[in-house]
Amino acid sequence: MKIAVLGTGSVGPTIAAALSALGHDVVIGTRDPKATLARTEPGATGGPAFAAWHAAHSRVDVATFADAAARAELVVNATNGAGSLEALTAAGAANLAGKVIMDVANPLDFSRGFPPSLNPVNTDSLGEQIQRAFPEARVVKTLNTMTASVMVDPASVAGGDHSVFVSGNDAAAKEIVSGLLKGFGHRDIIDLGDITTARGAEMVLPIWVRLWGALGTGAFNFKIAR
Amino acid sequence: MKIAVLGTGSVGPTIAAALSALGHDVVIGTRDPKATLARTEPGATGGPAFAAWHAAHSRVDVATFADAAARAELVVNATNGAGSLEALTAAGAANLAGKVIMDVANPLDFSRGFPPSLNPVNTDSLGEQIQRAFPEARVVKTLNTMTASVMVDPASVAGGDHSVFVSGNDAAAKEIVSGLLKGFGHRDIIDLGDITTARGAEMVLPIWVRLWGALGTGAFNFKIAR
Repeated sequence: MKIAVLGTGSVGPTIAAALSALGHDVVIGTRDPKATLARTEPGATGGPAFAAWHAAHSRVDVATFADAAARAELVVNATNGAGSLEALTAAGAANLAGKVIMDVANPLDFSRGFPPSLNPVNTDSLGEQIQRAFPEARVVKTLNTMTASVMVDPASVAGGDHSVFVSGNDAAAKEIVSGLLKGFGHRDIIDLGDITTARGAEMVLPIWVRLWGALGTGAFNFKIAR
Repeated sequence: MKIAVLGTGSVGPTIAAALSALGHDVVIGTRDPKATLARTEPGATGGPAFAAWHAAHSRVDVATFADAAARAELVVNATNGAGSLEALTAAGAANLAGKVIMDVANPLDFSRGFPPSLNPVNTDSLGEQIQRAFPEARVVKTLNTMTASVMVDPASVAGGDHSVFVSGNDAAAKEIVSGLLKGFGHRDIIDLGDITTARGAEMVLPIWVRLWGALGTGAFNFKIAR
């Protein structure tokens, strides 16, 4: 599938590399491709600089948000939650119309320090904001409840015996996304319901952050035991 | 141990019965014991009327919030989250001073219908509100992330292979509560940290509610796979 992954933090390149390794035609979307490709400072979470990452993943193209979205059949929103709507607006409503947006971002607000707050909560979610802003796109919230390495390699934690959630209004879009999740190795995909259920999935983040602190690692995931 | 369980909804009697069966000396606290004991209508979640429940659990005494707390070494807050501070105030600060409050309630707000909102969120939690209101008590948030039957019988779901969280400022209080949790059969007790981590545990509720809808049962629990 032709897939655009928007975002060049720790999540975007991780997902892009995994999708590329699975044989998908992947392009990373960023605000300024030249500046992104010139980055030589290490990633925020200790990952390699983007230039070094790209040298090792040269099959993944790098383009503007708009160019990346225009040529893709499916768009992954892996941008910082606080900047997601701006990034998707730069990608362009016309380039997103009819397409599946796999939204893995969290609306974390670090303005008051650590731990971050979530904004919005309760009566809205980033997933819903994106769906409202791009009504012709088909938004599926997923993967936001785990760290990037677990998103693309669930077997790295407890042999893959844990759960991933999908939320969205379009059943066919959830099927397409579930196919990608299975490609990564996810076995327990729970359909929470329409895009309003993204509120629940996003509100998991505060305990995720505390578990990360308590366990001293992000290498864990939620399993719904039943 | 002498334990007061405050609350006569679906959670309080379930916990009281389980603690009594384990040999603890249990009293249920309620606003008006005479009115509670006279209740013949079924419980809100389809459980037995309180009168019928009490006939089957006559070893559990029923008293006012204050009398129940006064005679207990440990107090379980199993009241409705929206009324918890009022119930604990009725129990009386002097009756709570120095004691462990095991807080299993969630601050759910149904005023806008279903699904409920959480209030407070992000920068505060019911657990913290209780700790602030009763600074001499030792509040431990726990068990709020699962349905009542799973709280007291974790083996009823996936053989008990799932997790329970504790949050609190007092390490000794968390040890005492962990002992009770082990008595119920909980094996994976994760200490999230101080009482501010109750924010994370409480913000799990929105996805719990959606999972309950998606799975068609409350007989599930979160396991932290790692």
